[in-house]
Amino acid sequence: MNELALIAKIRKQAARGPQVNLGIGDDCAIFRPRAGVDLLFTSDQMIEDVHFKRDQAPASVGQRALARNLSDIAAMGGEPHFCLVSLAVPAELGHKWISAFYRGLMNLARRTGTALAGGDLAHANKIYCDVMVCGSVPGGKALLRSGARPGDALYVSGRLGKTHFDKHWKRPIQPRLALGKTLRGLATSCMDISDGLSLDLHRLCLESGVAAEVERVPIVRGATLESALHGGEDYELLFTLPPRKSPPRGTTLIGKIMKGKPGAVTFQGKPLAPRGYDHFR
Amino acid sequence: MNELALIAKIRKQAARGPQVNLGIGDDCAIFRPRAGVDLLFTSDQMIEDVHFKRDQAPASVGQRALARNLSDIAAMGGEPHFCLVSLAVPAELGHKWISAFYRGLMNLARRTGTALAGGDLAHANKIYCDVMVCGSVPGGKALLRSGARPGDALYVSGRLGKTHFDKHWKRPIQPRLALGKTLRGLATSCMDISDGLSLDLHRLCLESGVAAEVERVPIVRGATLESALHGGEDYELLFTLPPRKSPPRGTTLIGKIMKGKPGAVTFQGKPLAPRGYDHFR
Repeated sequence: MNELALIAKIRKQAARGPQVNLGIGDDCAIFRPRAGVDLLFTSDQMIEDVHFKRDQAPASVGQRALARNLSDIAAMGGEPHFCLVSLAVPAELGHKWISAFYRGLMNLARRTGTALAGGDLAHANKIYCDVMVCGSVPGGKALLRSGARPGDALYVSGRLGKTHFDKHWKRPIQPRLALGKTLRGLATSCMDISDGLSLDLHRLCLESGVAAEVERVPIVRGATLESALHGGEDYELLFTLPPRKSPPRGTTLIGKIMKGKPGAVTFQGKPLAPRGYDHFR
Repeated sequence: MNELALIAKIRKQAARGPQVNLGIGDDCAIFRPRAGVDLLFTSDQMIEDVHFKRDQAPASVGQRALARNLSDIAAMGGEPHFCLVSLAVPAELGHKWISAFYRGLMNLARRTGTALAGGDLAHANKIYCDVMVCGSVPGGKALLRSGARPGDALYVSGRLGKTHFDKHWKRPIQPRLALGKTLRGLATSCMDISDGLSLDLHRLCLESGVAAEVERVPIVRGATLESALHGGEDYELLFTLPPRKSPPRGTTLIGKIMKGKPGAVTFQGKPLAPRGYDHFR
Protein backbone atom coordinates (compact mmCIF):
# COMPACT_ATOMS: atom_id res chain seq x y z
CA MET A 1 0.00 0.00 0.00
CA ASN A 2 1.44 3.40 -0.89
CA GLU A 3 0.85 6.69 0.91
CA LEU A 4 -2.08 7.64 -1.34
CA ALA A 5 -3.90 4.37 -0.65
CA LEU A 6 -3.16 4.55 3.08
CA ILE A 7 -4.44 8.13 3.27
CA ALA A 8 -7.57 7.10 1.37
CA LYS A 9 -8.18 4.40 4.00
CA ILE A 10 -7.68 6.83 6.92
CA ARG A 11 -9.89 9.38 5.16
CA LYS A 12 -12.72 6.82 5.23
CA GLN A 13 -12.29 6.42 9.00
CA ALA A 14 -12.19 10.16 9.57
CA ALA A 15 -15.20 11.78 11.16
CA ARG A 16 -16.00 15.18 9.69
CA GLY A 17 -17.18 18.02 11.90
CA PRO A 18 -19.92 20.48 11.00
CA GLN A 19 -17.45 23.36 10.52
CA VAL A 20 -14.59 21.38 8.94
CA ASN A 21 -15.11 22.17 5.27
CA LEU A 22 -12.24 20.24 3.81
CA GLY A 23 -10.44 17.45 5.55
CA ILE A 24 -7.60 15.20 4.49
CA GLY A 25 -6.50 15.44 0.85
CA ASP A 26 -5.44 19.05 0.30
CA ASP A 27 -2.48 21.16 1.45
CA CYS A 28 -4.38 22.41 4.52
CA ALA A 29 -7.56 21.59 6.41
CA ILE A 30 -10.15 24.39 6.37
CA PHE A 31 -12.15 25.35 9.47
CA ARG A 32 -14.82 28.05 9.54
CA PRO A 33 -15.05 29.40 13.10
CA ARG A 34 -18.33 30.66 14.55
CA ALA A 35 -18.50 34.36 15.37
CA GLY A 36 -17.58 35.40 18.91
CA VAL A 37 -15.50 32.40 19.91
CA ASP A 38 -11.96 32.10 21.17
CA LEU A 39 -10.20 29.12 19.63
CA LEU A 40 -7.99 26.88 21.77
CA PHE A 41 -4.95 25.03 20.45
CA THR A 42 -2.82 22.38 22.07
CA SER A 43 -0.39 19.71 20.93
CA ASP A 44 1.29 16.83 22.70
CA GLN A 45 3.84 14.25 21.63
CA MET A 46 3.75 10.49 22.30
CA ILE A 47 7.14 8.86 21.75
CA GLU A 48 8.04 5.18 21.86
CA ASP A 49 10.17 4.28 24.92
CA VAL A 50 9.36 7.66 26.48
CA HIS A 51 5.56 7.62 26.74
CA PHE A 52 4.82 4.00 25.82
CA LYS A 53 6.45 0.70 24.81
CA ARG A 54 6.08 -0.97 21.43
CA ASP A 55 4.22 -3.92 22.92
CA GLN A 56 1.36 -1.65 23.99
CA ALA A 57 -1.87 -2.11 21.99
CA PRO A 58 -1.80 0.45 19.16
CA ALA A 59 -5.47 1.35 19.73
CA SER A 60 -4.61 2.42 23.29
CA VAL A 61 -1.65 4.49 22.04
CA GLY A 62 -4.06 6.27 19.66
CA GLN A 63 -6.66 6.77 22.39
CA ARG A 64 -4.15 8.33 24.76
CA ALA A 65 -2.51 10.47 22.04
CA LEU A 66 -5.84 12.23 21.48
CA ALA A 67 -7.08 12.09 25.08
CA ARG A 68 -4.06 13.94 26.52
CA ASN A 69 -4.85 16.87 24.24
CA LEU A 70 -8.58 16.75 25.00
CA SER A 71 -7.61 16.99 28.67
CA ASP A 72 -5.88 20.32 27.86
CA ILE A 73 -9.04 21.52 26.07
CA ALA A 74 -11.09 20.50 29.14
CA ALA A 75 -8.66 22.41 31.39
CA MET A 76 -9.48 25.64 29.51
CA GLY A 77 -13.26 24.99 29.70
CA GLY A 78 -13.42 24.27 25.97
CA GLU A 79 -15.17 21.89 23.63
CA PRO A 80 -13.13 20.16 20.93
CA HIS A 81 -13.70 20.63 17.18
CA PHE A 82 -10.99 18.83 15.25
CA CYS A 83 -7.53 17.31 15.42
CA LEU A 84 -4.47 16.96 13.20
CA VAL A 85 -2.47 13.77 13.63
CA SER A 86 1.24 13.48 12.73
CA LEU A 87 2.52 9.92 12.91
CA ALA A 88 5.86 8.31 12.09
CA VAL A 89 6.27 4.53 12.35
CA PRO A 90 9.01 2.00 11.63
CA ALA A 91 8.45 0.30 8.26
CA GLU A 92 8.31 -3.16 9.89
CA LEU A 93 5.15 -2.30 11.85
CA GLY A 94 3.14 -1.84 8.66
CA HIS A 95 -0.39 -0.78 8.00
CA LYS A 96 -2.01 -3.03 10.58
CA TRP A 97 -0.43 -1.06 13.42
CA ILE A 98 -1.38 2.27 11.83
CA SER A 99 -4.98 1.18 11.27
CA ALA A 100 -5.38 0.03 14.88
CA PHE A 101 -3.82 3.29 16.14
CA TYR A 102 -6.37 5.29 14.16
CA ARG A 103 -9.21 3.02 15.33
CA GLY A 104 -8.42 3.83 18.98
CA LEU A 105 -8.06 7.50 18.23
CA MET A 106 -11.24 7.71 16.15
CA ASN A 107 -13.38 5.95 18.78
CA LEU A 108 -12.62 8.75 21.23
CA ALA A 109 -12.84 11.40 18.50
CA ARG A 110 -16.40 10.34 17.63
CA ARG A 111 -17.51 10.24 21.28
CA THR A 112 -16.23 13.77 21.87
CA GLY A 113 -17.24 15.40 18.56
CA THR A 114 -13.65 15.82 17.37
CA ALA A 115 -13.16 15.64 13.58
CA LEU A 116 -9.95 14.20 12.14
CA ALA A 117 -9.05 17.05 9.79
CA GLY A 118 -5.60 16.10 8.55
CA GLY A 119 -2.05 15.30 9.47
CA ASP A 120 1.16 13.78 8.22
CA LEU A 121 2.51 10.23 7.85
CA ALA A 122 6.20 9.28 7.72
CA HIS A 123 8.61 6.49 8.49
CA ALA A 124 11.05 6.63 11.41
CA ASN A 125 13.07 4.14 13.45
CA LYS A 126 10.73 4.50 16.45
CA ILE A 127 7.07 5.39 16.75
CA TYR A 128 6.44 9.11 17.15
CA CYS A 129 3.16 10.84 17.17
CA ASP A 130 2.08 14.37 17.72
CA VAL A 131 -1.58 15.30 17.94
CA MET A 132 -2.91 18.86 17.74
CA VAL A 133 -6.44 19.62 18.88
CA CYS A 134 -8.47 22.77 18.18
CA GLY A 135 -11.38 23.59 20.47
CA SER A 136 -13.31 26.70 21.44
CA VAL A 137 -14.87 28.67 24.28
CA PRO A 138 -17.21 31.66 24.12
CA GLY A 139 -15.01 34.77 23.68
CA GLY A 140 -13.12 35.70 26.86
CA LYS A 141 -14.35 32.66 28.81
CA ALA A 142 -11.25 30.43 28.70
CA LEU A 143 -10.11 29.11 32.09
CA LEU A 144 -6.48 30.18 32.64
CA ARG A 145 -3.74 29.09 35.01
CA SER A 146 -3.10 32.70 35.94
CA GLY A 147 -6.34 33.66 37.71
CA ALA A 148 -5.92 32.11 41.19
CA ARG A 149 -6.12 34.68 44.02
CA PRO A 150 -5.18 34.43 47.73
CA GLY A 151 -8.16 33.08 49.65
CA ASP A 152 -9.43 30.93 46.74
CA ALA A 153 -10.25 27.31 47.56
CA LEU A 154 -8.24 24.64 45.73
CA TYR A 155 -9.92 21.54 44.24
CA VAL A 156 -9.16 18.45 42.18
CA SER A 157 -11.50 16.17 40.24
CA GLY A 158 -11.44 12.40 40.81
CA ARG A 159 -8.66 10.68 42.72
CA LEU A 160 -4.91 10.91 42.18
CA GLY A 161 -2.13 8.34 42.02
CA LYS A 162 -3.31 6.30 39.03
CA THR A 163 0.24 5.63 37.85
CA HIS A 164 0.73 3.50 40.98
CA PHE A 165 -1.16 0.73 39.15
CA ASP A 166 -0.34 1.73 35.61
CA LYS A 167 3.37 2.28 35.36
CA HIS A 168 3.25 1.87 31.61
CA TRP A 169 0.32 4.21 31.07
CA LYS A 170 -1.84 1.76 29.20
CA ARG A 171 -5.27 2.59 30.59
CA PRO A 172 -7.57 4.87 28.56
CA ILE A 173 -7.66 8.50 29.70
CA GLN A 174 -11.09 10.03 30.34
CA PRO A 175 -10.71 13.74 29.56
CA ARG A 176 -12.85 15.87 31.92
CA LEU A 177 -14.63 17.79 29.18
CA ALA A 178 -18.02 18.07 30.92
CA LEU A 179 -16.45 19.32 34.16
CA GLY A 180 -14.35 21.87 32.26
CA LYS A 181 -17.48 23.35 30.69
CA THR A 182 -19.19 23.48 34.09
CA LEU A 183 -16.25 25.43 35.52
CA ARG A 184 -16.53 28.21 32.89
CA GLY A 185 -17.47 31.45 34.64
CA LEU A 186 -17.11 29.71 38.03
CA ALA A 187 -13.44 28.78 38.51
CA THR A 188 -10.80 31.52 38.86
CA SER A 189 -8.08 29.23 37.47
CA CYS A 190 -7.81 25.71 36.07
CA MET A 191 -5.28 23.29 34.57
CA ASP A 192 -5.03 19.56 34.07
CA ILE A 193 -2.72 17.38 36.15
CA SER A 194 -0.51 15.64 33.62
CA ASP A 195 2.93 15.79 35.26
CA GLY A 196 1.92 15.22 38.90
CA LEU A 197 0.13 17.40 41.46
CA SER A 198 3.30 18.83 43.04
CA LEU A 199 4.78 20.09 39.74
CA ASP A 200 1.50 21.19 38.15
CA LEU A 201 0.31 23.08 41.26
CA HIS A 202 3.73 24.77 41.37
CA ARG A 203 3.16 25.87 37.73
CA LEU A 204 -0.36 27.16 38.44
CA CYS A 205 0.94 29.15 41.42
CA LEU A 206 3.84 30.58 39.36
CA GLU A 207 1.46 31.74 36.60
CA SER A 208 -0.93 33.26 39.16
CA GLY A 209 1.85 34.81 41.29
CA VAL A 210 0.58 33.07 44.44
CA ALA A 211 1.46 30.29 46.92
CA ALA A 212 -0.70 27.32 47.98
CA GLU A 213 -1.30 25.13 51.02
CA VAL A 214 -2.44 21.54 50.42
CA GLU A 215 -4.07 19.77 53.37
CA ARG A 216 -5.37 16.53 51.88
CA VAL A 217 -5.40 14.61 48.58
CA PRO A 218 -8.00 12.11 47.34
CA ILE A 219 -6.02 8.95 46.59
CA VAL A 220 -7.01 6.09 44.28
CA ARG A 221 -7.73 3.06 46.51
CA GLY A 222 -4.49 1.19 47.19
CA ALA A 223 -2.19 3.83 45.69
CA THR A 224 0.41 5.65 47.77
CA LEU A 225 0.46 9.27 48.90
CA GLU A 226 3.76 9.53 47.01
CA SER A 227 2.15 8.59 43.68
CA ALA A 228 -0.83 10.91 44.36
CA LEU A 229 1.49 13.87 45.02
CA HIS A 230 4.17 13.25 42.41
CA GLY A 231 2.97 10.63 39.92
CA GLY A 232 2.15 11.95 36.47
CA GLU A 233 -0.56 11.04 33.98
CA ASP A 234 -3.57 11.54 36.25
CA TYR A 235 -5.42 13.81 33.78
CA GLU A 236 -7.69 15.23 36.45
CA LEU A 237 -8.52 18.94 36.69
CA LEU A 238 -6.89 21.17 39.30
CA PHE A 239 -8.87 24.38 39.83
CA THR A 240 -9.61 27.24 42.21
CA LEU A 241 -12.96 28.70 43.26
CA PRO A 242 -13.60 31.96 45.07
CA PRO A 243 -14.30 31.33 48.81
CA ARG A 244 -17.85 30.12 49.56
CA LYS A 245 -18.66 29.00 45.99
CA SER A 246 -19.98 25.42 45.94
CA PRO A 247 -17.89 22.97 43.97
CA PRO A 248 -19.26 20.70 41.21
CA ARG A 249 -19.95 17.04 42.07
CA GLY A 250 -17.03 14.63 42.02
CA THR A 251 -14.48 17.20 43.08
CA THR A 252 -12.57 17.47 46.37
CA LEU A 253 -11.35 20.47 48.36
CA ILE A 254 -7.62 19.91 48.87
CA GLY A 255 -6.35 23.25 50.17
CA LYS A 256 -6.24 26.95 49.52
CA ILE A 257 -4.40 29.70 47.70
CA MET A 258 -2.21 32.01 49.82
CA LYS A 259 -0.13 35.12 49.51
CA GLY A 260 3.54 34.19 49.41
CA LYS A 261 6.49 33.42 47.18
CA PRO A 262 5.01 32.66 43.72
CA GLY A 263 5.06 28.91 43.17
CA ALA A 264 5.67 27.96 46.83
CA VAL A 265 3.53 24.99 47.84
CA THR A 266 3.20 23.29 51.24
CA PHE A 267 1.63 19.92 52.10
CA GLN A 268 0.33 19.59 55.66
CA GLY A 269 2.55 22.48 56.70
CA LYS A 270 5.81 21.28 55.09
CA PRO A 271 7.31 22.53 51.80
CA LEU A 272 6.26 20.34 48.84
CA ALA A 273 8.98 20.28 46.17
CA PRO A 274 7.82 20.14 42.52
CA ARG A 275 8.93 16.59 41.72
CA GLY A 276 6.53 15.56 38.94
CA TYR A 277 7.58 14.47 35.50
CA ASP A 278 9.82 17.00 33.73
CA HIS A 279 11.41 16.01 30.40
CA PHE A 280 14.07 18.67 30.70
CA ARG A 281 15.09 18.36 34.32
CA MET B 1 18.24 23.98 32.96
CA ASN B 2 14.86 22.38 33.62
CA GLU B 3 11.78 22.45 31.41
CA LEU B 4 10.32 25.54 33.15
CA ALA B 5 13.52 27.57 32.61
CA LEU B 6 13.85 26.38 29.01
CA ILE B 7 10.23 27.28 28.24
CA ALA B 8 10.79 30.71 29.83
CA LYS B 9 13.73 31.24 27.47
CA ILE B 10 11.75 30.18 24.37
CA ARG B 11 8.85 32.34 25.52
CA LYS B 12 11.15 35.39 25.38
CA GLN B 13 12.07 34.53 21.77
CA ALA B 14 8.44 34.02 20.80
CA ALA B 15 6.82 36.66 18.62
CA ARG B 16 3.20 37.34 19.56
CA GLY B 17 0.60 37.97 16.90
CA PRO B 18 -2.16 40.56 17.14
CA GLN B 19 -4.87 37.91 17.60
CA VAL B 20 -2.92 35.45 19.75
CA ASN B 21 -4.21 36.33 23.20
CA LEU B 22 -2.26 33.86 25.24
CA GLY B 23 0.86 32.13 24.09
CA ILE B 24 3.16 29.65 25.77
CA GLY B 25 2.53 28.96 29.47
CA ASP B 26 -1.02 27.65 29.71
CA ASP B 27 -2.75 24.41 28.72
CA CYS B 28 -3.73 25.79 25.30
CA ALA B 29 -2.92 28.79 23.12
CA ILE B 30 -5.89 31.09 22.51
CA PHE B 31 -6.59 32.62 19.09
CA ARG B 32 -9.45 35.03 18.36
CA PRO B 33 -10.35 34.72 14.67
CA ARG B 34 -11.64 37.69 12.67
CA ALA B 35 -15.23 37.42 11.42
CA GLY B 36 -15.73 35.99 7.93
CA VAL B 37 -12.49 34.10 7.57
CA ASP B 38 -11.76 30.49 6.80
CA LEU B 39 -8.89 29.17 8.90
CA LEU B 40 -6.23 26.92 7.34
CA PHE B 41 -4.34 24.24 9.24
CA THR B 42 -1.36 22.18 8.21
CA SER B 43 1.32 20.15 9.97
CA ASP B 44 4.52 18.54 8.78
CA GLN B 45 7.12 16.38 10.46
CA MET B 46 10.93 16.72 10.26
CA ILE B 47 12.71 13.58 11.42
CA GLU B 48 16.44 13.00 11.85
CA ASP B 49 17.87 10.60 9.21
CA VAL B 50 14.66 10.92 7.19
CA HIS B 51 14.48 14.66 6.43
CA PHE B 52 17.89 15.80 7.68
CA LYS B 53 21.14 14.63 9.28
CA ARG B 54 22.31 15.54 12.75
CA ASP B 55 25.32 17.48 11.39
CA GLN B 56 22.98 19.97 9.71
CA ALA B 57 22.95 23.42 11.31
CA PRO B 58 20.06 23.47 13.82
CA ALA B 59 18.97 26.95 12.67
CA SER B 60 18.43 25.58 9.16
CA VAL B 61 16.42 22.61 10.53
CA GLY B 62 14.20 25.13 12.36
CA GLN B 63 13.86 27.34 9.28
CA ARG B 64 12.80 24.42 7.07
CA ALA B 65 10.46 22.93 9.70
CA LEU B 66 8.39 26.13 9.63
CA ALA B 67 8.91 26.94 5.93
CA ARG B 68 7.48 23.63 4.69
CA ASN B 69 4.23 24.43 6.49
CA LEU B 70 4.18 28.04 5.28
CA SER B 71 4.47 26.62 1.76
CA ASP B 72 1.22 24.72 2.38
CA ILE B 73 -0.44 27.93 3.61
CA ALA B 74 0.82 29.70 0.43
CA ALA B 75 -0.61 26.87 -1.71
CA MET B 76 -4.10 27.62 -0.33
CA GLY B 77 -3.72 31.38 -0.92
CA GLY B 78 -3.51 32.06 2.81
CA GLU B 79 -1.57 34.26 5.17
CA PRO B 80 -0.07 32.71 8.29
CA HIS B 81 -1.06 33.68 11.84
CA PHE B 82 0.68 31.38 14.30
CA CYS B 83 2.46 28.07 14.77
CA LEU B 84 2.74 25.34 17.40
CA VAL B 85 6.11 23.58 17.60
CA SER B 86 6.57 20.06 18.99
CA LEU B 87 10.20 19.10 19.40
CA ALA B 88 11.94 16.02 20.83
CA VAL B 89 15.75 15.93 21.07
CA PRO B 90 18.36 13.53 22.44
CA ALA B 91 19.57 14.65 25.89
CA GLU B 92 23.19 14.88 24.66
CA LEU B 93 22.35 17.71 22.23
CA GLY B 94 21.35 20.02 25.06
CA HIS B 95 19.94 23.50 25.13
CA LYS B 96 22.38 25.01 22.64
CA TRP B 97 20.91 22.91 19.83
CA ILE B 98 17.35 23.75 20.88
CA SER B 99 18.07 27.49 21.09
CA ALA B 100 19.65 27.54 17.61
CA PHE B 101 16.71 25.57 16.19
CA TYR B 102 14.27 28.15 17.59
CA ARG B 103 16.46 31.03 16.34
CA GLY B 104 16.20 29.75 12.74
CA LEU B 105 12.48 29.13 13.10
CA MET B 106 11.78 32.51 14.71
CA ASN B 107 13.68 34.48 12.06
CA LEU B 108 11.31 33.18 9.42
CA ALA B 109 8.32 33.49 11.77
CA ARG B 110 8.99 37.21 12.29
CA ARG B 111 9.47 37.89 8.58
CA THR B 112 6.15 36.23 7.74
CA GLY B 113 4.04 37.49 10.67
CA THR B 114 3.74 34.02 12.25
CA ALA B 115 3.46 34.01 16.06
CA LEU B 116 4.94 31.12 18.06
CA ALA B 117 1.89 30.25 20.15
CA GLY B 118 2.91 27.08 21.93
CA GLY B 119 4.11 23.53 21.57
CA ASP B 120 5.70 20.64 23.39
CA LEU B 121 9.26 19.67 24.35
CA ALA B 122 10.44 16.13 25.06
CA HIS B 123 13.49 13.89 24.93
CA ALA B 124 13.91 11.12 22.36
CA ASN B 125 16.79 9.12 20.90
CA LYS B 126 16.65 11.04 17.61
CA ILE B 127 15.57 14.56 16.73
CA TYR B 128 11.91 14.74 15.85
CA CYS B 129 9.89 17.83 15.20
CA ASP B 130 6.38 18.54 14.07
CA VAL B 131 5.22 22.07 13.29
CA MET B 132 1.58 23.08 12.90
CA VAL B 133 0.70 26.39 11.24
CA CYS B 134 -2.65 28.20 11.29
CA GLY B 135 -3.40 30.74 8.57
CA SER B 136 -6.48 32.25 7.00
CA VAL B 137 -8.18 33.28 3.77
CA PRO B 138 -11.33 35.36 3.28
CA GLY B 139 -14.31 32.96 3.62
CA GLY B 140 -14.67 30.64 0.63
CA LYS B 141 -11.49 31.88 -1.09
CA ALA B 142 -9.09 29.03 -0.32
CA LEU B 143 -7.26 27.62 -3.36
CA LEU B 144 -7.98 23.89 -3.55
CA ARG B 145 -6.39 20.99 -5.41
CA SER B 146 -9.79 19.94 -6.68
CA GLY B 147 -10.74 22.86 -8.96
CA ALA B 148 -8.75 22.15 -12.15
CA ARG B 149 -10.93 21.80 -15.26
CA PRO B 150 -10.15 20.44 -18.75
CA GLY B 151 -8.77 23.28 -20.86
CA ASP B 152 -7.11 25.08 -17.91
CA ALA B 153 -3.51 26.11 -18.39
CA LEU B 154 -0.94 24.57 -16.01
CA TYR B 155 1.81 26.67 -14.40
CA VAL B 156 4.65 26.44 -11.91
CA SER B 157 6.49 29.19 -10.04
CA GLY B 158 10.30 29.41 -10.16
CA ARG B 159 12.45 26.57 -11.46
CA LEU B 160 12.43 22.91 -10.48
CA GLY B 161 15.16 20.40 -9.65
CA LYS B 162 16.70 22.12 -6.63
CA THR B 163 17.48 18.80 -4.92
CA HIS B 164 20.03 18.13 -7.71
CA PHE B 165 22.38 20.48 -5.82
CA ASP B 166 21.00 19.98 -2.33
CA LYS B 167 20.71 16.28 -1.69
CA HIS B 168 20.64 16.88 2.03
CA TRP B 169 18.03 19.63 1.94
CA LYS B 170 20.05 22.22 3.77
CA ARG B 171 19.15 25.39 1.88
CA PRO B 172 16.47 27.68 3.31
CA ILE B 173 13.02 27.32 1.75
CA GLN B 174 11.32 30.49 0.52
CA PRO B 175 7.58 29.87 0.87
CA ARG B 176 5.63 31.54 -1.97
CA LEU B 177 3.23 33.44 0.28
CA ALA B 178 2.94 36.57 -1.91
CA LEU B 179 2.23 34.53 -5.05
CA GLY B 180 -0.38 32.45 -3.22
CA LYS B 181 -2.27 35.60 -2.23
CA THR B 182 -2.09 36.89 -5.84
CA LEU B 183 -3.62 33.63 -7.08
CA ARG B 184 -6.73 33.98 -4.86
CA GLY B 185 -9.77 34.43 -7.09
CA LEU B 186 -7.59 33.79 -10.16
CA ALA B 187 -6.34 30.19 -10.06
CA THR B 188 -8.81 27.30 -10.40
CA SER B 189 -6.54 24.98 -8.41
CA CYS B 190 -3.22 25.17 -6.58
CA MET B 191 -0.82 23.08 -4.49
CA ASP B 192 2.83 23.22 -3.52
CA ILE B 193 5.42 20.87 -5.04
CA SER B 194 6.97 19.14 -2.05
CA ASP B 195 7.27 15.55 -3.24
CA GLY B 196 8.25 16.16 -6.88
CA LEU B 197 6.28 17.43 -9.89
CA SER B 198 5.31 13.98 -11.20
CA LEU B 199 3.74 12.81 -7.91
CA ASP B 200 2.22 16.14 -6.89
CA LEU B 201 0.65 16.79 -10.33
CA HIS B 202 -0.76 13.25 -10.19
CA ARG B 203 -2.35 14.13 -6.83
CA LEU B 204 -3.79 17.43 -8.13
CA CYS B 205 -5.29 15.62 -11.13
CA LEU B 206 -6.75 12.86 -8.91
CA GLU B 207 -8.43 15.43 -6.63
CA SER B 208 -9.78 17.35 -9.63
CA GLY B 209 -10.84 14.23 -11.57
CA VAL B 210 -8.80 15.25 -14.62
CA ALA B 211 -5.67 14.34 -16.62
CA ALA B 212 -2.75 16.61 -17.59
CA GLU B 213 -0.24 17.04 -20.40
CA VAL B 214 3.13 18.57 -19.52
CA GLU B 215 5.16 19.97 -22.43
CA ARG B 216 8.09 21.73 -20.76
CA VAL B 217 9.53 22.30 -17.27
CA PRO B 218 11.67 25.24 -16.10
CA ILE B 219 14.85 23.65 -14.73
CA VAL B 220 17.30 25.14 -12.23
CA ARG B 221 20.55 25.88 -14.17
CA GLY B 222 22.72 22.78 -14.20
CA ALA B 223 20.08 20.43 -12.74
CA THR B 224 18.74 17.45 -14.69
CA LEU B 225 15.30 16.96 -16.20
CA GLU B 226 15.04 13.89 -13.96
CA SER B 227 15.42 15.96 -10.77
CA ALA B 228 13.00 18.61 -12.09
CA LEU B 229 10.33 15.98 -12.80
CA HIS B 230 10.80 13.70 -9.81
CA GLY B 231 13.00 15.40 -7.18
CA GLY B 232 11.18 16.51 -4.07
CA GLU B 233 11.56 19.56 -1.85
CA ASP B 234 11.14 22.24 -4.55
CA TYR B 235 8.44 24.15 -2.61
CA GLU B 236 7.22 25.96 -5.71
CA LEU B 237 3.51 26.43 -6.47
CA LEU B 238 1.76 24.30 -9.10
CA PHE B 239 -1.49 25.91 -10.27
CA THR B 240 -4.06 26.11 -13.03
CA LEU B 241 -5.62 29.16 -14.67
CA PRO B 242 -8.66 29.31 -16.93
CA PRO B 243 -7.61 29.61 -20.61
CA ARG B 244 -6.56 33.15 -21.68
CA LYS B 245 -5.97 34.46 -18.11
CA SER B 246 -2.53 36.08 -17.82
CA PRO B 247 -0.23 34.45 -15.31
CA PRO B 248 1.57 36.34 -12.50
CA ARG B 249 5.24 37.25 -13.00
CA GLY B 250 7.84 34.58 -12.30
CA THR B 251 5.61 31.70 -13.33
CA THR B 252 5.92 29.41 -16.35
CA LEU B 253 3.29 27.71 -18.51
CA ILE B 254 4.18 24.00 -18.46
CA GLY B 255 1.15 22.30 -19.97
CA LYS B 256 -2.60 21.95 -19.78
CA ILE B 257 -5.41 20.08 -18.07
CA MET B 258 -7.26 17.46 -20.14
CA LYS B 259 -10.24 15.18 -19.94
CA GLY B 260 -9.03 11.65 -19.26
CA LYS B 261 -8.36 9.05 -16.59
CA PRO B 262 -8.17 10.98 -13.30
CA GLY B 263 -4.53 11.35 -12.30
CA ALA B 264 -3.07 10.39 -15.70
CA VAL B 265 -0.16 12.66 -16.63
CA THR B 266 1.94 12.73 -19.81
CA PHE B 267 5.26 14.48 -20.46
CA GLN B 268 5.95 15.37 -24.10
CA GLY B 269 3.38 12.80 -25.17
CA LYS B 270 4.60 9.86 -23.02
CA PRO B 271 3.05 8.67 -19.72
CA LEU B 272 4.76 10.24 -16.71
CA ALA B 273 4.69 7.87 -13.74
CA PRO B 274 4.27 9.44 -10.27
CA ARG B 275 7.79 8.76 -8.93
CA GLY B 276 8.26 11.56 -6.39
CA TYR B 277 8.94 11.04 -2.72
CA ASP B 278 6.38 8.84 -0.97
CA HIS B 279 7.09 7.75 2.61
CA PHE B 280 4.71 4.82 2.35
CA ARG B 281 5.56 3.41 -1.03
